[in-house]
Amino acid sequence: MRIGIYGYGNLGRGVECAIGAHTDATLVGVFTRRAPESVKTVSGAPVYPAQSITEFKDKIDILIICGGSATDLPEMTPALARDFNVVDSFDTHAKIPEHFKKVDEAARKNGHIALISGGWDPGLFSVLRVYSEAVLPNGKDYTFWGRGVSQGHSDAIRRIDGVLDARQYTVPVPEAIGAVRGGDCPELTTREKHKRECYVVAAEGADRARIEKEIKEMPNYFADYDTSVTFISAEELAANHRGLPHGGSVIRNGATGFDGENSHTVEFSLRLDSNPEFTASVLVAYARAIYRMHGRGEVGCKTVLDIAPADMSQMSAEELRARML
Amino acid sequence: MRIGIYGYGNLGRGVECAIGAHTDATLVGVFTRRAPESVKTVSGAPVYPAQSITEFKDKIDILIICGGSATDLPEMTPALARDFNVVDSFDTHAKIPEHFKKVDEAARKNGHIALISGGWDPGLFSVLRVYSEAVLPNGKDYTFWGRGVSQGHSDAIRRIDGVLDARQYTVPVPEAIGAVRGGDCPELTTREKHKRECYVVAAEGADRARIEKEIKEMPNYFADYDTSVTFISAEELAANHRGLPHGGSVIRNGATGFDGENSHTVEFSLRLDSNPEFTASVLVAYARAIYRMHGRGEVGCKTVLDIAPADMSQMSAEELRARML
Repeated sequence: MRIGIYGYGNLGRGVECAIGAHTDATLVGVFTRRAPESVKTVSGAPVYPAQSITEFKDKIDILIICGGSATDLPEMTPALARDFNVVDSFDTHAKIPEHFKKVDEAARKNGHIALISGGWDPGLFSVLRVYSEAVLPNGKDYTFWGRGVSQGHSDAIRRIDGVLDARQYTVPVPEAIGAVRGGDCPELTTREKHKRECYVVAAEGADRARIEKEIKEMPNYFADYDTSVTFISAEELAANHRGLPHGGSVIRNGATGFDGENSHTVEFSLRLDSNPEFTASVLVAYARAIYRMHGRGEVGCKTVLDIAPADMSQMSAEELRARML
Repeated sequence: MRIGIYGYGNLGRGVECAIGAHTDATLVGVFTRRAPESVKTVSGAPVYPAQSITEFKDKIDILIICGGSATDLPEMTPALARDFNVVDSFDTHAKIPEHFKKVDEAARKNGHIALISGGWDPGLFSVLRVYSEAVLPNGKDYTFWGRGVSQGHSDAIRRIDGVLDARQYTVPVPEAIGAVRGGDCPELTTREKHKRECYVVAAEGADRARIEKEIKEMPNYFADYDTSVTFISAEELAANHRGLPHGGSVIRNGATGFDGENSHTVEFSLRLDSNPEFTASVLVAYARAIYRMHGRGEVGCKTVLDIAPADMSQMSAEELRARML
């Protein structure tokens, strides 16, 4: 399958790298809104201006759109689904039904297929929530995120006056995750589930007490959490906080038995050195799935919940039955 | 959907119980090879002789076959797939391709659909092996089972002369599972991955040293493992080893990055109070999926790898997108 990458930030580079690990995929090129001559790909793949994308209608089987969920994807994915089979990682959970509808209309009208909201949450975590709920309807599920870098929270700190750089880690509270793993079904507040660790580089002479207060009182982002703020040097940030690790767990506790006497715990966990590279790897596996589904005549918008595992694998159905079942 | 249960042991009772938790499922009845008047269902569902099953051709949407993999299912599933849509839990991994072929032919010829090898291994564990391999092709996966009761190994001990009863627990070796969870990809021998704990009730006057030796040297079952044998009374067995707990983990470690510099760990774990009740719950969720697929015109044999998660859920596609993604 011939893949195009639309947008070349951390995620786009992750897709470029992932394609190298999938022997059935080739990279046609990278499309950017920046000046193409200013962008150099790691693999040496060609770089084209975003507006030239329509010239590639017959040269790309699947276009993986690597834009942001806030403003890029709501416009880009429906627009590009008119000319291409597309995959995106739209992750604004509350707006998924609206995004789905727009992409579905555009894709269906033009005989294309699309997969939205690929990645790990939404994505593999969603898949595991559905499996475990379907199997254990009498139960309760929990999602814990981290320990990992939240780019949105890091950006929010960087916007504070006097802050030069920052890294925010989302950390699940050990007591909460321990109770849930042990089979309990506690009601947990936001504060009881996660805490937030902030590493901040302040400008020389900046009022650190004021910065710390502004972080801890920031609504939505930090006010509902136990938040720690540690001031570090730019060198320490570069040395110890350069990566984008993440991870988390989906855990469901459920009961079976004629009196609900037997309890079960289903857990799916990820520990990721690089959030964008793992997310990109998920997108490439789903690109394969929708490429095959399109070959069988399917059109319209899909989500990870509509994809059978076999379609994501490089192996044939026979190989899968012989080796993976 | 109207469900029939064919075979009424631990698994059949588990299915009976699971159906009660699924509001879209009703139990038509239980079919047994024993004298029907000798069988009493927990829920009060009617009991019919196995040979009357063909009279129910138009009264059952999905027949869940709860027989053993050694001799029952290889005959039963292809035979019953001629008249019914069927689900089984065939778990002899090496013979799945052969079983698939027979069931596929019988189902396809008669316009039925079948799902074989449902449960958790094969089953949900297989699904997770395929997801994690598709996403992280450069990696290695591990399956650990337990701590849990292996009925096959317990039966093997019971066949030894002088043994009245026995319970065998399969236990993953903590050092092995710890190394894999930590991101290492060790080559592990059978002995390094699991150990076996046996609790044995011996007949009065039986030669315990001989029994212990026979267990520990039994080929395939115990000889390749570190095995402990503990003699206990029938009362202690009944008090402390009555349940059928099980569980385990599928773990894949994989690398991404242009130099493979980032490592990732994907883990799926189960902790089950009752192996048969959880397995039965999985079968009912897959029964829903193939019932829907048959409604869309699909026929032939499927495995868990062919089923999209959305088809297993009681929720509609719209609800799933709004609530579970």
